[in-house]
Amino acid sequence: MAKVGIVMGSDSDMPVMAKAADVLEELGVEYEMTIISAHREPDVFFEYAKSAESKGWKVIIAGAGMAAHLPGMCAAIFPMPVIGIPMHTTSLGGRDSLYSIVQMPSGIPVATVAIGGGANAGILAAKILATSDDALLERLKKYSSDLKDQVVAKAEKLDKLGYKEYMKQK
Amino acid sequence: MAKVGIVMGSDSDMPVMAKAADVLEELGVEYEMTIISAHREPDVFFEYAKSAESKGWKVIIAGAGMAAHLPGMCAAIFPMPVIGIPMHTTSLGGRDSLYSIVQMPSGIPVATVAIGGGANAGILAAKILATSDDALLERLKKYSSDLKDQVVAKAEKLDKLGYKEYMKQK
Amino acid sequence: MAKVGIVMGSDSDMPVMAKAADVLEELGVEYEMTIISAHREPDVFFEYAKSAESKGWKVIIAGAGMAAHLPGMCAAIFPMPVIGIPMHTTSLGGRDSLYSIVQMPSGIPVATVAIGGGANAGILAAKILATSDDALLERLKKYSSDLKDQVVAKAEKLDKLGYKEYMKQK
Amino acid sequence: MAKVGIVMGSDSDMPVMAKAADVLEELGVEYEMTIISAHREPDVFFEYAKSAESKGWKVIIAGAGMAAHLPGMCAAIFPMPVIGIPMHTTSLGGRDSLYSIVQMPSGIPVATVAIGGGANAGILAAKILATSDDALLERLKKYSSDLKDQVVAKAEKLDKLGYKEYMKQK
Amino acid sequence: MAKVGIVMGSDSDMPVMAKAADVLEELGVEYEMTIISAHREPDVFFEYAKSAESKGWKVIIAGAGMAAHLPGMCAAIFPMPVIGIPMHTTSLGGRDSLYSIVQMPSGIPVATVAIGGGANAGILAAKILATSDDALLERLKKYSSDLKDQVVAKAEKLDKLGYKEYMKQK
Amino acid sequence: MAKVGIVMGSDSDMPVMAKAADVLEELGVEYEMTIISAHREPDVFFEYAKSAESKGWKVIIAGAGMAAHLPGMCAAIFPMPVIGIPMHTTSLGGRDSLYSIVQMPSGIPVATVAIGGGANAGILAAKILATSDDALLERLKKYSSDLKDQVVAKAEKLDKLGYKEYMKQK
Amino acid sequence: MAKVGIVMGSDSDMPVMAKAADVLEELGVEYEMTIISAHREPDVFFEYAKSAESKGWKVIIAGAGMAAHLPGMCAAIFPMPVIGIPMHTTSLGGRDSLYSIVQMPSGIPVATVAIGGGANAGILAAKILATSDDALLERLKKYSSDLKDQVVAKAEKLDKLGYKEYMKQK
Amino acid sequence: MAKVGIVMGSDSDMPVMAKAADVLEELGVEYEMTIISAHREPDVFFEYAKSAESKGWKVIIAGAGMAAHLPGMCAAIFPMPVIGIPMHTTSLGGRDSLYSIVQMPSGIPVATVAIGGGANAGILAAKILATSDDALLERLKKYSSDLKDQVVAKAEKLDKLGYKEYMKQK
Repeated sequence: MAKVGIVMGSDSDMPVMAKAADVLEELGVEYEMTIISAHREPDVFFEYAKSAESKGWKVIIAGAGMAAHLPGMCAAIFPMPVIGIPMHTTSLGGRDSLYSIVQMPSGIPVATVAIGGGANAGILAAKILATSDDALLERLKKYSSDLKDQVVAKAEKLDKLGYKEYMKQK
Repeated sequence: MAKVGIVMGSDSDMPVMAKAADVLEELGVEYEMTIISAHREPDVFFEYAKSAESKGWKVIIAGAGMAAHLPGMCAAIFPMPVIGIPMHTTSLGGRDSLYSIVQMPSGIPVATVAIGGGANAGILAAKILATSDDALLERLKKYSSDLKDQVVAKAEKLDKLGYKEYMKQK
Repeated sequence: MAKVGIVMGSDSDMPVMAKAADVLEELGVEYEMTIISAHREPDVFFEYAKSAESKGWKVIIAGAGMAAHLPGMCAAIFPMPVIGIPMHTTSLGGRDSLYSIVQMPSGIPVATVAIGGGANAGILAAKILATSDDALLERLKKYSSDLKDQVVAKAEKLDKLGYKEYMKQK
Repeated sequence: MAKVGIVMGSDSDMPVMAKAADVLEELGVEYEMTIISAHREPDVFFEYAKSAESKGWKVIIAGAGMAAHLPGMCAAIFPMPVIGIPMHTTSLGGRDSLYSIVQMPSGIPVATVAIGGGANAGILAAKILATSDDALLERLKKYSSDLKDQVVAKAEKLDKLGYKEYMKQK
Repeated sequence: MAKVGIVMGSDSDMPVMAKAADVLEELGVEYEMTIISAHREPDVFFEYAKSAESKGWKVIIAGAGMAAHLPGMCAAIFPMPVIGIPMHTTSLGGRDSLYSIVQMPSGIPVATVAIGGGANAGILAAKILATSDDALLERLKKYSSDLKDQVVAKAEKLDKLGYKEYMKQK
Repeated sequence: MAKVGIVMGSDSDMPVMAKAADVLEELGVEYEMTIISAHREPDVFFEYAKSAESKGWKVIIAGAGMAAHLPGMCAAIFPMPVIGIPMHTTSLGGRDSLYSIVQMPSGIPVATVAIGGGANAGILAAKILATSDDALLERLKKYSSDLKDQVVAKAEKLDKLGYKEYMKQK
Repeated sequence: MAKVGIVMGSDSDMPVMAKAADVLEELGVEYEMTIISAHREPDVFFEYAKSAESKGWKVIIAGAGMAAHLPGMCAAIFPMPVIGIPMHTTSLGGRDSLYSIVQMPSGIPVATVAIGGGANAGILAAKILATSDDALLERLKKYSSDLKDQVVAKAEKLDKLGYKEYMKQK
Repeated sequence: MAKVGIVMGSDSDMPVMAKAADVLEELGVEYEMTIISAHREPDVFFEYAKSAESKGWKVIIAGAGMAAHLPGMCAAIFPMPVIGIPMHTTSLGGRDSLYSIVQMPSGIPVATVAIGGGANAGILAAKILATSDDALLERLKKYSSDLKDQVVAKAEKLDKLGYKEYMKQK
């Protein structure tokens, strides 16, 4: 049964949201992904946010750009954690999305990750679930350990090749 | 009968919203003012925005600060113009409020005025109503003419006193 | 008879202004579009702004970039609503245009939309006219309903295909 | 037994961190608060972050200002959620703290709240724990309901008094 | 006969504009100062800008804040140099004024000085006139030399007192 | 004899500086252009700035990017007007160049134009010289008049073709 | 014999520069402090920067605000490290100073510290000298150790008192 | 024996870090380069930073992007100078990296260079070592002199060809 809802305001956000889904799959966490615009279909949105708890979800990951209201409106209705992903924007680089998501008023937090930070949103959702799921916590530690191994491998490759050769091979 | 709804997310916004109300009173436009938080009482908010048209309102003026979702969410529901007032904020000077209000996605405009621009929101509401109300249009022209007279009077005072004396008397 | 004037400072702004015109056509609102530079031909501009009311216009949509004075100067002369569209700029991303348009002093509001928000300017103009035009209001509601349907269709497609397939087909 | 660690880099951050603690107390969540500088005592910091899991903590709330490394470094070591609070700063208004906390690289998320958002950090920590604690979830719903009641009361007061009287009494 | 026109959009700008006038007096340059709002009295403004050349003015110093159109509109009409002074603003620190003044489109330059840079505007006006006035050029060199002497005197005082004593005496 | 010195810190600035030279040629103003780095050859720079007056120059146009010191250092030495052109930069869009040029301390103004505003720097230099050169003033008015004609021609073309056809032909 | 030159552009920078001097005194490093404006007395400045090496200085600490050219111009002349301190500014918070100091072109680095970071400039100068002075290196380690002890003491106090009492006693 | 450690958080930073290495090679300074992520392998990082002094290093050059903690964490542990290079970032242009590196709290300075300033980091490291190495100081002076010659050659080429021809040949 899905424990995480993934929602985006527009399908242009999908490449970023897909990274959250990819991570959750890799970590063995079930999720449901959909597209809902709080602005273009507020009634659909309200229904979505209100029914999330009864579907058994524990976390919602919401991504949006510009005047990004989707994560904050989810957080106004859903009683458990909402993770917000600010989308990069052409004119303001994502500052508009970031401020619209992170600067929530007292009482309604959104757990905000980096601009375009889809993978981190997925990891954060898993970390939240891992507070009561030891097996998932172990898989998260393995995931971190793999990240470390990748850096170590790069360092060894640099040590062996030198930076000039390394950059050529890249 | 009120034609303009004035709504703010928090009573800390009232000094700014009051300027909108003051202008509307001066221009003889009826309004209703209330406090509704889209974040803290989303159901109250939805009901408010949905019933606005049936109450005969033609314009909503919404003010909010930080991740200011109230104007945009009004615009998602109310089919006529929504005017947004970004509130000044301590940390980001109101850039957060401004971006959260003005950077609306295609399809759901918010008519945004300056940071803290309460009076201008009131005037803009009146200008919108004046597109079909000649008497109000005349009152607006008189209002503008008065503004002009004030500047002219200051220029004359400066011309008479010189700037050193002018600044002392101020 | 045209009810909306669309004016831009430079023909480089036309792709954005065209979106406003497209929306107005779709909503059955007549408009007149022209190019006038408040900086390069201030006398032409003044004549334009002063004659707008007598031509029967109810709204002006003005787009400009950088030190974008055109919308604000229109608002200084035309007594009904002026909608300002800040153009994206290479160096400052449109912040310069946005601030020059939205930060108007008390007494002379410009109804500002998002950077590059041509379509929203057109919709906002229609919403303003709809405050006294029930048929137009119905067309606007239909327009919003169509936007909603598009999102719903995308959500259904995502639900059917899954995000990996969805992104491939895009 | 404490489930939440609250840590700040400097005692000048305490007024903000205290709001997180206040909320946790109100919601019946045990926590431990301390002061640790990742910059001035990196060894103490490492020991702190490494031992957090074995102490039974499920969430760390870390606040820091300027080049705010404390939350990110906690997230590099502690395998469960880290909530970051960016402190307001005199020169950059907290943008420096915000960017240093939210813009984490892929793999190491920090759940970032608003600049100075101490209360929201506490609420978010409680929401995370509530994903596996139904009693806490109920208390959170009650907390939200109280927030709503406060707004409703203010709206009623405004309705009764009018805004001019309301502002006088404030 | 006045060679410099000093104009501000609002008498709140006078303390900054006064510094320009002070410098011009000190350098023996005649000027005329007035208050004209391009927004509130566009016809007065146009008349002002159009008649400036025939009054024998060679330079206009224009100060304005927020969406600061006054300097740019002067430059659109007056054929000789216009110096723009961006005013400090509460919310955006004067970035709005600066961008609205300096980011002029090709063809209509405004010689922009620092935010609040009243004295520098006066000096720049004098430098412009000094391109054809050797006596004024000498007075400008004397002015610069005096500035240098002030710094030298401070350096000597610091050398004599040491910084701890220097700060006490300040 | 050259009356304007054009100087840039790096030949990467030449496309922008060339626009200043182009305008001066078109307006019949003689100039000398060179490349001097205040940072890489401070002694060459000092000699350049000190000898400028004796060469008969009346204005220096200086362009620079990033920590753009060249215009300000020219203004510290040359007693007549210095025009500064901030270069666009990849990381900060030219904000760094703009602030480094426009925010000069009291006593040493730089007449700053828009980011990348080469043509405007040339026009401003001509306007400065035109304060004592009636023939040049006439050429400047002709130049402005030509700019106006170009806009008028575009407006007529748009009126004739409509915007859809206009955009196709562009 | 002094090994560090401390220079500021204006005596308004002295409270910040004094912190650098205080640290150097505490660490037993001799310095000379003076006031020199690169803008108001460029010849004095050049002489200063050129003679620094022959006076035996190894590091220059230069502080400046707004279009802060002093550190960069020192770095253009002095062949050893120059440390730049950006001053806080009213309008732009010190961003102008920061960008003018840190964004130096390739070839002429300035070692930039935080806005208003006087103490850090002093510590950095000492660290530079400590690369060839073991006794100074030991004093620096002791300095760091003392910083750590201060944090530890605060943590103990917090542990003992609890945060409510701690804040009262502060 | 290496005197400089070069470390980056990710191999995507290598093109910038390579410029530092290139300069050090050109100046005859030995260095060691590696990849270490303070976030993904904090224990490896700690070991690295702690052992740096015993390896005989005098300077560390650390580059990082976004929430760039690597330079600051090096400075928290290594007792001699740490030079930080902020990486350019897509969304915020490197402001995030810059603020995360330069805005260090009192006690732990990072000598920050420009965004993407790899070459300057290398030069600054050499300047630091040159405070106790006269031969290196001479090589640095030669390096600066070569930079000057390059500018002089460009100026001569411009003088000979004129700017139109110069730009064609480029």
